[in-house]
Order: sequence, then C-alpha cells, then structure tokens
Amino acid sequence: MLLESLRKEVLEANLELVRRGLVLYTFGNVSGIDRDRGLVAIKPSGVPYEEMTCEHIVISDLQGKIVDGDLRPSSDLPTHLELYKAFSNIGGVAHTHSEYATSWAQAETPIPCLGTTHADYFHGPVPVTQPLSASQIQGDYELETGVAICRVFQKLDPDAIPAVLVAGHAPFCWGKNAAEAAHNAVILEYIARMASHTLLINGQVQPLARELHDKHFLRKHGVHAYYGQAKKS
Amino acid sequence: MLLESLRKEVLEANLELVRRGLVLYTFGNVSGIDRDRGLVAIKPSGVPYEEMTCEHIVISDLQGKIVDGDLRPSSDLPTHLELYKAFSNIGGVAHTHSEYATSWAQAETPIPCLGTTHADYFHGPVPVTQPLSASQIQGDYELETGVAICRVFQKLDPDAIPAVLVAGHAPFCWGKNAAEAAHNAVILEYIARMASHTLLINGQVQPLARELHDKHFLRKHGVHAYYGQAKKS
Amino acid sequence: MLLESLRKEVLEANLELVRRGLVLYTFGNVSGIDRDRGLVAIKPSGVPYEEMTCEHIVISDLQGKIVDGDLRPSSDLPTHLELYKAFSNIGGVAHTHSEYATSWAQAETPIPCLGTTHADYFHGPVPVTQPLSASQIQGDYELETGVAICRVFQKLDPDAIPAVLVAGHAPFCWGKNAAEAAHNAVILEYIARMASHTLLINGQVQPLARELHDKHFLRKHGVHAYYGQAKKS
Amino acid sequence: MLLESLRKEVLEANLELVRRGLVLYTFGNVSGIDRDRGLVAIKPSGVPYEEMTCEHIVISDLQGKIVDGDLRPSSDLPTHLELYKAFSNIGGVAHTHSEYATSWAQAETPIPCLGTTHADYFHGPVPVTQPLSASQIQGDYELETGVAICRVFQKLDPDAIPAVLVAGHAPFCWGKNAAEAAHNAVILEYIARMASHTLLINGQVQPLARELHDKHFLRKHGVHAYYGQAKKS
Repeated sequence: MLLESLRKEVLEANLELVRRGLVLYTFGNVSGIDRDRGLVAIKPSGVPYEEMTCEHIVISDLQGKIVDGDLRPSSDLPTHLELYKAFSNIGGVAHTHSEYATSWAQAETPIPCLGTTHADYFHGPVPVTQPLSASQIQGDYELETGVAICRVFQKLDPDAIPAVLVAGHAPFCWGKNAAEAAHNAVILEYIARMASHTLLINGQVQPLARELHDKHFLRKHGVHAYYGQAKKS
Repeated sequence: MLLESLRKEVLEANLELVRRGLVLYTFGNVSGIDRDRGLVAIKPSGVPYEEMTCEHIVISDLQGKIVDGDLRPSSDLPTHLELYKAFSNIGGVAHTHSEYATSWAQAETPIPCLGTTHADYFHGPVPVTQPLSASQIQGDYELETGVAICRVFQKLDPDAIPAVLVAGHAPFCWGKNAAEAAHNAVILEYIARMASHTLLINGQVQPLARELHDKHFLRKHGVHAYYGQAKKS
Repeated sequence: MLLESLRKEVLEANLELVRRGLVLYTFGNVSGIDRDRGLVAIKPSGVPYEEMTCEHIVISDLQGKIVDGDLRPSSDLPTHLELYKAFSNIGGVAHTHSEYATSWAQAETPIPCLGTTHADYFHGPVPVTQPLSASQIQGDYELETGVAICRVFQKLDPDAIPAVLVAGHAPFCWGKNAAEAAHNAVILEYIARMASHTLLINGQVQPLARELHDKHFLRKHGVHAYYGQAKKS
Repeated sequence: MLLESLRKEVLEANLELVRRGLVLYTFGNVSGIDRDRGLVAIKPSGVPYEEMTCEHIVISDLQGKIVDGDLRPSSDLPTHLELYKAFSNIGGVAHTHSEYATSWAQAETPIPCLGTTHADYFHGPVPVTQPLSASQIQGDYELETGVAICRVFQKLDPDAIPAVLVAGHAPFCWGKNAAEAAHNAVILEYIARMASHTLLINGQVQPLARELHDKHFLRKHGVHAYYGQAKKS
C-alpha cells in the first residue's frame, strides 16, 4: 500500500479526535504529508470513524490530484494543501468543529492568552481570519479559506502559533506531523473552554504578562526547553 | 409483525437519542411513517429505553387510531401526525428535551445561524412557534402544538429547515426517515450549544453572511452537493 | 435484618444518584420511611458508595434514636425527620449537592418555571428557604434546616412541588418513596441546568403561562393523567 | 525500592486526578513527603499517565537534589518544595490545570465562599497570588511561584484553606498526604464550577454568612467534628 505508515499515522490522528470528544458523527479531518514525495494523506469525506481503515485514507498530490484511494477526500483538502505549501515546517493539519474553539470562530474573536496553559502551546493569541468576500465564497471556496489563513500568518510565525480560527466556521491546527496537529486541536479546545469561563468570571481580565507568556512557551519549546524528558541523542 | 422493518428503524432511532445523551429517563420520542400504507410507528409512552423492543413500538394511522400494539403511544403522537400531514416529504419525526435546544425553546428565541456547522444542516435560523392560547392549551393540546409548528412553516421550507423550537417546550426535528430525524436532533443540540457559547463570547455577533450560509448548505444538499461519497446508481 | 426491603430501596436510590452523576465522593444522602413502624432508613455518613451495602443503612426512629445499624447516620438525618413529620404523604427524601441545583441554592434564587419539562414535575417555581439566623445555625442546625423548609411549605403543597433549595446550601427533594425522591433530584438538576442556560440566552424571559404549566403537570399527575402506561388494577 | 509505599501513594494520587477528569494528557502533578527522611516523591515530567509506574516516580530532597529515579521530576518541583518547607503540617501537594479552578486563576479572582460545599473544605475564600514581577519570572520561576504562594499565607492558615490560585496560571492544593491533596483538588474544581454558575444566576449574591461557614467547616474538621464515622482509637 502506498505510504502505509503515513496512512496509519493519519488514521490514528483522526481517531484521537474522536477519543478526545472533539468530533460529532463524521465531523473533522486530519491529514499528514510526505515532504519528500510531495504527497498528502487525508481522511475521506463522510465515512464513519468506527468503520475507517488505512485503505480509506486518500492520497493526493499538492495540486489536489488523487494519486491513490477509491474514495473522495475530505472536501477541505484544498485548505490543507494551501497550508502545506505556505508553512514549510509543518507535517500535519487538523480541522475540527470542536465545541468551544468553533464558538470562538463563530464569535469572530481571537482567543486571548489568559493563562500559562495557553502560553505553553501558543506564543500569542489564536488569530481569526478575515471573512471571505462573496466572490471568494462562490469561487474556489476551500482554497480561498486556505489563502485567508495564510494571509493572517504573513506577520505571524505558524510554528509558534499552530492554530487559527476561520471566521464563522471553525479552527484549523497544525504541527510537525498528524499526531501533533491533532494534539494541538485538543489543547486549543481546552484553552477555548477556559478562556470562555475566565471572561464570564472577570470581563475585565487582561492578557497574560508578556514575560510569563514567553517563559512558559520557551520552557516547553526551543533550545532551552526543560519540560518533559530530555530527548536521547 | 406488522411493519417490522419500520418498527426496527424507529426503535433504533429512539436508541440513538439515548446513545448521544439527548434524553433523560423516558424523555423524547421518535416516529417513522410508511407513506404507502399511511401508518406511523412511534415510541410507547413512559417505557424505559433499556427495556424497549420492536414489540413495544405502537402503530397508528394518520387519524391517531391505534392499529397495532398493546401500549399507549407517546402522548405527543398528535403532534407527529400533524407534521406528517403537512410536510409531504418527511419520513420521520424526533422530539427531545435535549439540554440546550430546549433552553433556546424556553428562551423563545430562534437559533440564529452563527456558523457553517449550522449552515451545513439548516438553511436559515431555527424558528420558534407562537405561544398557544389558553383555549388551545386546554383543548386538543398536542394537536394544536402540531398546528402551531405548521403555521411557522407556511413561509419556510421544512425540507431546508428540518427543526423547530416549540415556545416554552422543546424542539421537534424531522427528516426523510426516523434515523435522519434523530440525526437532526443531535445536530440541533450541538448548534444550540455553540450558539449559546458564541453569544456569551461576543454578544454583538452577526449572523453568518448569506453567501457562506448558502455555500455550506448547498455543498451538502441539492443537485450540486459534493460532500461525502457519491451515491452509486 | 430489620426492614431489609426498605434498606434495599434506600441503598438503590442512593446508588441512582451516583449513576446519574449527581454526587461527588460521599456527597448526598437518600432515606425512606416505613410509616407503619415509624422508622426511617438512611445512608450512613461518609461511607464510599462503591462499598455500601444494605447492612450499612442506618435505621432511626422519628426522634432520631438509632434503632439498628453500627454506623453513624448521615449528619442530615434531623432534616429528613422534620420533612417526614411535616409532609404526611411522602415516603422518601433525597439530598444532593448536584452542580446546578446547588448553584441556584447558592444564588438564593427560586428556579422559575421556564418550560414544560419543569411543569411536568413541579407545579410552581422551586422555592428557596429563608437564611437561618446565627442562633439557629449554632443551635440544632440540621433540625432548624428542616424547620426552615417546612416554613416555606406552609403556603405550598409539598406533593405538587417535591423540592426545595436550602439557601446557601443545596437542594432537598422528596417523593412517595426513596426511588421517587432520587428521581426528582435528577429532574431538578436537569431543569436547574436548563433554567441557567435559558436566562443566559434571554434574560427577559417570562415564566411559562399558567395554563401551559397546569396542562403539563396535570397530564402526568392526578386523576386525569394520560402520560405513561395506564396502571392495571 | 526507596520509599516504595510513598511512591505508591503518590502514583495513586496522580491517577486519581485522571479518573476524576482533572487532567488532559500529561497535565498536573502530585507529590508526597516523608518528613522523617526529608524526601519528596513526585510525578516525572511529561510521562503519559497510562504508562506510569512506581519506578517512574522521582525522589528528591528538600533542596531539589534528585536522590532516586531515572527521569526528570515535574518542572513544578521547586514550587512543591517551597510549600513543604513553609507549611509544616502538610504531607502532599497537588497541582492541576483543571478547567474551572484554572479559569478562576486566569481571572485573578479569589473564589468566594458561596455555599456550604465550599465551607465544608475551605475555611475562607480560596485566595489568589500576586502576579510575579518580570525579574521573578525570568529568574528561578518555579521557586518564585512557591514564594508567592507562601506570601499569601502569611496571614492565612494553610491547614484551614488547603488551596491557592496562582494568578494567570492554575491552582495548587495540599493536604495531610498525597491522597488528600488530590482530593482537595477535585473538591476545588467542583466548588469553582458552582461558584461560576452561581454568579451567572445572581451577580449580586453575597458570601455565605460567617456563622454558617464556621458551622460547616467545623462539623467536618477539628475536635468537635461529627461528620463521617468516628475514628476508632
């Protein structure tokens, strides 16, 4: 089977979204890329998770041409492809309609960094895209969604803020592979929940101090990270 | 057994509401119709879901006359019958007291379309009925509930908006069969949750742009749909 | 074993609270009464639910004298006894710190009847007690809690409104036996959740029309009830 | 194995946080102390809970020197050590990012005592630390977090209020051993949830009357406690 190990990773990352309660029915989709071959593996459209196997995962090239697989890919494939083309370090993309992250996307409000849980994963607020114009919506909609995401990251580092809220729609997350993309989607949902609660408790709360935000992000990421177990070389 | 396959579908759709966390105790009821015979299969009243079998499903004609079954039908049967008579394309009806959809019904507030999750399923806001008058309540109450629903849909397409909130009561949903009616009830609960959260995050949020609403509804429904797997002919 | 069947009922009703997610650790307690003998069976204090057996259920007379059982009864026993003495038709009492009902008690706000789910079980708002005075708190506190509840019901029918919120504390519910008391506690939690959500959606919402409230209460209760299966005589 | 029984207690207390839904992925950490030997057992950093065994628990002295174990300790170890040094009666510390308690910490708002559930465990509001200065954050951050907690308790009794909210971060709880520390973290999350709901129902609610607060705390704690089963001597 073409790209069997990537398919397995992608299948597993999709199932992780189910286990963590981020998807209802067939909602959501995760993909992964093989950079050397320029091929993307993505969940098929509308197939129940409980029946999904590696064979169902669809292989596409970066232009969206299906290279392997009998099923239609997720209709959001063109959005994933835009992200892979623009963000050169990422290896996986996850899209969900998870309850609270989607609510922030619907509110068209960036998620401010209100605590260290957020700072551990996202080095700044989680941004929102600009709404698409009528002609973008009626044109190549899913591709335009990817373009709108990339426009937000012209001035932001996608490796330091691995998530975005698509206005009126839902979040997209990414990471160094499919598993990390799904993991970031789970974390995003959790910080979205807590940000909602926090603002109801204290509507005047200010974002976390920059120093504390940096401290937490950098103790988990980058060359001086000291969280978790040291990677053996 | 009369209409054994319809009974099975109806039983299964009722149990789906339980699995999805939409019902407490014996709350809720789903029915399905055999249009050729003009017969409706509906959950019995007040029987625990864990004991329910096909034999318990009650068969009624469209006038509410019990044709088969030893138990009383759900007391909401007359509401279901009104919907079957007025909405000629539907094959199933689901009624729940699910937590958030019921809260919107109690708030007597239509659920605005705030995002693409809503737009994927409902081609407009989910409407609320007018409150019943004292004489309607004291008269044939469950039938009058059905009449109030149909009045709302005089200017709306029930196939494009397969749900309604009965003011001060709870939602009714429908679909091409019992399974789809139950499925729509699950989706309705989910969008009701997200609409509540969205408004708490941003009380000034505007409904989704019409173009985006149309785009999402039409990519899943109608002749140009491209979501899910193509139906093999 | 003295009152073995009552003990079983009381044990089972206590476990129902656990299964329905109403209790954390050893919180909550349910009792039942044998009116002929004037004896009450109640959960012991501070025993883990997963270890609880019929032998642990404590038997008390109506004056609070322990008649059988090696363990201390729930410290709320004197409250239960006051309710049994004042409300002659009840056979069971349930006390929980369930999340939303307790939040309403803490808010010292009666739960208004905002929908038919409430009306199906409670024939009016769920009332709140007056706060106890310092001397009542420092005196026979648990008995005074019972007295405060009974004072609320001097002008209300405890059979038509089988629950109360003790101000700053939590709910007490009752019913014709221990199982019904626990069942009412589960329903109370559900309507408390929905009332909270409803008010966040629409802070101006008015209580359910009296006619609709009566209709729903009376279709489930009283001589003309037509909900559920007819009781065979 | 050094301190095998303490390791087991600490492992078990960490797993209790998982069972009670207080942790996501590898979030959270619980430690316990052997006062006689001056040694602390703590969860390792970033190890999945489902794979964790007694061997993974790290043993440190009170200066943070690792005495036994192959893995890095939780990065929050210096905070735990400060608490053990300052609060002489405690035997366990638990740190979580549980959803509602963390939201209160992010809101930088003390949790007021709004009901008897709170009063049963915490003899006053749950306080919030002062934010750290930039130099404290950039210096020995985790130790400074412990210092900030101890500063709050200069005028409070840590045995009567076994929890604190670290501003912009999350809660720390403690108790006479690791199990009680974890138990208090579970209770804190529950009262944090209920305090949030209570304020949304009634934004004008006042803290519980002092007499009632004292009554509940003292019926569970101290020499006149009468809740639970008497300890056999």
